[in-house]
Amino acid sequence: MHRTSLAGSQCPIARSLDRVGEWWSMLILRDALGGLTRFDQFEKSLGIAPNMLTRRLAGLVEAGLLERRRYSVRPPRDEYLLTERGRDFQPVLWAMIAWGNRHFAPEGESLVLLDRETGAKAEPVLVDRISGKQMTPAAFRAAAGPAAGDRLRRRYALSDPAPETAS
Amino acid sequence: MHRTSLAGSQCPIARSLDRVGEWWSMLILRDALGGLTRFDQFEKSLGIAPNMLTRRLAGLVEAGLLERRRYSVRPPRDEYLLTERGRDFQPVLWAMIAWGNRHFAPEGESLVLLDRETGAKAEPVLVDRISGKQMTPAAFRAAAGPAAGDRLRRRYALSDPAPETAS
Repeated sequence: MHRTSLAGSQCPIARSLDRVGEWWSMLILRDALGGLTRFDQFEKSLGIAPNMLTRRLAGLVEAGLLERRRYSVRPPRDEYLLTERGRDFQPVLWAMIAWGNRHFAPEGESLVLLDRETGAKAEPVLVDRISGKQMTPAAFRAAAGPAAGDRLRRRYALSDPAPETAS
Repeated sequence: MHRTSLAGSQCPIARSLDRVGEWWSMLILRDALGGLTRFDQFEKSLGIAPNMLTRRLAGLVEAGLLERRRYSVRPPRDEYLLTERGRDFQPVLWAMIAWGNRHFAPEGESLVLLDRETGAKAEPVLVDRISGKQMTPAAFRAAAGPAAGDRLRRRYALSDPAPETAS
């Protein structure tokens, strides 16, 4: 198939996708973050083939995003609970909701994010916690970090593109 | 293959993944956001087979994330430029960088995000633009929006899980 392991890459996006980049994995995480825990719940929600769901759940357990826990001995049944690492993926999915709502919801928003306390609708934006600035490509850029190897250093030394957009 | 179209789903995450969820697509976007525009640049950066790269680029053009522009007539050569919609995906990838750095960089950060003006290292967090609150699962939840159909309404009427994490 087209699966290539990216775990060896230094790039944190590649490493993340190595854990969650398979087709279905992020939707399973979405459902787990929505409160689903059991095989049949995921199966019904996603309309996914059982053997594929088994593989994807095993991958997410192996990556430390879900934890398998037996909740019935007879018949043997497991549930899948989010770990801290899995729950911490929520902001990525929320950023994706904001992007999807902006670009792929011509009929209006089907899903919104609400403040639990006030019930007010949220507008998710990525912000630098230190300066409070909104993180736009005009204001921020990626750069090689302290643990970067030669390849990553060369790449980010060369490219610091001014934000430019087609047409 | 295991490809299933999610475009028909109302969920904005599913709709987004329908555009960028294929293996390679987000890495191509990463590279485009990093300034790459040409076929051979993507090919070299990703180590991807040419026929696969051709398919993925075509998919991203079709989804309106990249725009193809001819830069040489003889030989015929196209470059791929980000559209507004494609550039707007940057916060999702930056949120993924933050997550990857927190969980999959035991040797330290290989990639960091810097304030272009001050050079200071950023700490990306998702914040509600209206209230300024950090968007944690404890403080915010997903809910059916005005355009939600019955299926999505039922799902989000039933599930409003209290944040709970394994072990």
